Amino acid sequence: MTAYTATVTVRLKHGVLDPEAETTKRSLERLGFELSALRSADKFEIDLDADDASAAEAEATEMTERLLANPTIHDYEISVAETEA
Amino acid sequence: MTAYTATVTVRLKHGVLDPEAETTKRSLERLGFELSALRSADKFEIDLDADDASAAEAEATEMTERLLANPTIHDYEISVAETEA
Repeated sequence: MTAYTATVTVRLKHGVLDPEAETTKRSLERLGFELSALRSADKFEIDLDADDASAAEAEATEMTERLLANPTIHDYEISVAETEA
Repeated sequence: MTAYTATVTVRLKHGVLDPEAETTKRSLERLGFELSALRSADKFEIDLDADDASAAEAEATEMTERLLANPTIHDYEISVAETEA
């Protein structure tokens, strides 16, 4: 078994309202910044042991689909790398 | 002016307790997954216009230090790329 880190990024699907991002954008504008859009996402780094990278990615995908993301409103991306020592 | 997207990742400094990540880790374990650690981070994608990439990065850094991150408890990373059409 090798130690892998799976990085999971969960973001709202295009068109789903994101009031938190909207509030953050407005707060930045109130501070005087100019920006045309702001999107927020959740990022999870999961350390797990697996036989190989594809097994680690399959495990992380199942974790994401069962708990971390809601497929009705979220898209997600997963990348896997060996954990740095 | 060119359109840039700054990606800001804000994470808790090493050693700062993260009860949300701890709860997520335990929920995954309750579902039968085995993992050795889970860390969470916030990711912001900010679309802004700037003269060049280094000006965009400077602007995103100021946004991060003034609003998105709390330097007492957070580390952050910023990367900047031209916005994809």
